[in-house]
Amino acid sequence: MNVVQPTLLLDEEKCKKNILKMVNKAQESKSVLRPHFKTHQSAEVGEWFKEAGIEKCAVSSLGMAEYFAHAGWKDITVAFPLNVLEKEKVNRLAKTITLNLCIESTETARILSDFVQHQLNVFVEVDAGYNRSGISSEDYEEIAGIIDIIQQNKLLHFTGFLQHAGHTYQAKGKSEIDEIHAFTSDKMRSLKNHFQKKYPEIIVSNGDTPTCSVSENFEGVDEMRPGNFIFYDVMQAEIGSCSYEEIAVALACPVVAKYPERNEIVVYGGAVHFSKDRIENESGTSMYGLVAQKSAYGWGNPTPGLYMKKLSQEHGTIHATDEFIRQTKIGDILYILPIHSCLTANLMGKYFTLEGRELGMYRFGF
Amino acid sequence: MNVVQPTLLLDEEKCKKNILKMVNKAQESKSVLRPHFKTHQSAEVGEWFKEAGIEKCAVSSLGMAEYFAHAGWKDITVAFPLNVLEKEKVNRLAKTITLNLCIESTETARILSDFVQHQLNVFVEVDAGYNRSGISSEDYEEIAGIIDIIQQNKLLHFTGFLQHAGHTYQAKGKSEIDEIHAFTSDKMRSLKNHFQKKYPEIIVSNGDTPTCSVSENFEGVDEMRPGNFIFYDVMQAEIGSCSYEEIAVALACPVVAKYPERNEIVVYGGAVHFSKDRIENESGTSMYGLVAQKSAYGWGNPTPGLYMKKLSQEHGTIHATDEFIRQTKIGDILYILPIHSCLTANLMGKYFTLEGRELGMYRFGF
Repeated sequence: MNVVQPTLLLDEEKCKKNILKMVNKAQESKSVLRPHFKTHQSAEVGEWFKEAGIEKCAVSSLGMAEYFAHAGWKDITVAFPLNVLEKEKVNRLAKTITLNLCIESTETARILSDFVQHQLNVFVEVDAGYNRSGISSEDYEEIAGIIDIIQQNKLLHFTGFLQHAGHTYQAKGKSEIDEIHAFTSDKMRSLKNHFQKKYPEIIVSNGDTPTCSVSENFEGVDEMRPGNFIFYDVMQAEIGSCSYEEIAVALACPVVAKYPERNEIVVYGGAVHFSKDRIENESGTSMYGLVAQKSAYGWGNPTPGLYMKKLSQEHGTIHATDEFIRQTKIGDILYILPIHSCLTANLMGKYFTLEGRELGMYRFGF
Repeated sequence: MNVVQPTLLLDEEKCKKNILKMVNKAQESKSVLRPHFKTHQSAEVGEWFKEAGIEKCAVSSLGMAEYFAHAGWKDITVAFPLNVLEKEKVNRLAKTITLNLCIESTETARILSDFVQHQLNVFVEVDAGYNRSGISSEDYEEIAGIIDIIQQNKLLHFTGFLQHAGHTYQAKGKSEIDEIHAFTSDKMRSLKNHFQKKYPEIIVSNGDTPTCSVSENFEGVDEMRPGNFIFYDVMQAEIGSCSYEEIAVALACPVVAKYPERNEIVVYGGAVHFSKDRIENESGTSMYGLVAQKSAYGWGNPTPGLYMKKLSQEHGTIHATDEFIRQTKIGDILYILPIHSCLTANLMGKYFTLEGRELGMYRFGF
């Protein structure tokens, strides 16, 4: 693989190990794994899930659902509050695949009921503490109102409750993740118990990479929807969801300038390649990426003392040790572990495996 | 223009006004305008500059230079430290257009000198205080060393000094911008004076949107390279580079959920559409965008009390007033002014004018 410009490398072996681990985790937890494909957005990577026996997936937009339907996926959940303006996509998809949508208000339910032309499944999206989207998981009255509208239309089938505990991204270590997971799972179980009397077939769909990676008790969670685990990233390693060795993507960036006097290296690789998610270290310094040590075949742990300290459109500024700068030449390639692999992958638009094979991606702009 | 998903709208009239204003500013300042095209990245938008008499441009990568060379631009500066790995692109470009590169070390100068096959111009990139890339503008000895290597190769022509005062992005108001501009211009004048004895034809190329928008004294600045001014954005309005009315792009986003109990609206429009640049308001709250008031034809000032408070991959969470939420329906379109239009445009990959005409963009991933 001859890298001459910022290039997103993918370690296929690590990806497949991450997939297998999650497949086993779901089996042990007696939960169905419906991986979220918004992280990789790639039909080719999707095939690796099929090889591991996975038949259902989640996506974050109707456009992405069309891309994966085209790639042969027959059961897709759009894990995002329904955008009622895309009714044509909804009807096109519902005609050909098992389409599962998320509704979280009577207003949206009524609009969907008005335009739907083919059978589809509806989750009521609930909020069990993250406060992003979804109706409060305790507002049984309003939830019943939404279900009523769904039930009144024979094309709509009420499937259950979907929730995303994104606040685990603020956690640090297993015990904090477990605490959030226990709290949200408890709410989801109560909710299911309440409505199961009337709708015995309903399921609970939960999904976030930290919980699915480290928690053990998935009682009452019928379906798991993690996405990021396929690649992981610095944020997940810092949360405690993975080890650094499990991070399966790195952005290969050429060195274009060195400033030993201020312990900095500038690489060709900026906000248009990484996006601008960041984490803060213990002393409050923002970090936009870590520089991985090269291994015989790919990369391993982060290099001690090195981190991406600043990003502008195409420049990445790396804080580096004297020794590292002395050893580094203009034109060297650094392997940089992204803070948030989903956003980096989305920007790069394609992957290259370590063997140099190109893997394509969904592109909403095209 | 029927918007059904996040769509980047471009107000052509505002763009053309912004272009004309900067063209006039450069003429009054007796400086050559070489607009930076990394903001719009669009051949069609480039034509509007040609119509205003502009014949030279700057870009941020060799790939982007190839895109604009293909679109008919004959004099292009790659305003980024040369990536020596892309030698094939350099030679291809230098064969067909007037290519101007930036070098900031003897190491890079030697590598370029070794592989160059066609005539090209070389700027020495200097750092006059921003501390991102470029050799210190006061290190005359090292600069002379770089120039020597350039001069020894008959294919390389030493053109002058290029500088970017990106620290104006941290400024607030005209006086702070003017102060940085005076400081950096002074350094550039001294530098030019020093080397002009030996190289009488050299020029100084400066460029940043705040300075070029508000400062008046461009004595000694032979060339201006602003980029963002074509669109402007919330960051520039907050710095004082423009008025809110001059912001020429807005991301149209569908409303997908409403939470009156916590004064929030969720739109379909997240980090994969806006990127994650943010500004902090006076009370330390992070803002990822502002919601513009709709006008008869496009948009105007921000709506008081509304701002984008949170972004995840596809969700945008807007803080909104009770009254605004009451008036807003699911499926309504909000026009959101980006914090940093360069990154938003890069993610969206294309524009639609208010008349619904699609404008394409350079895509490095393809």
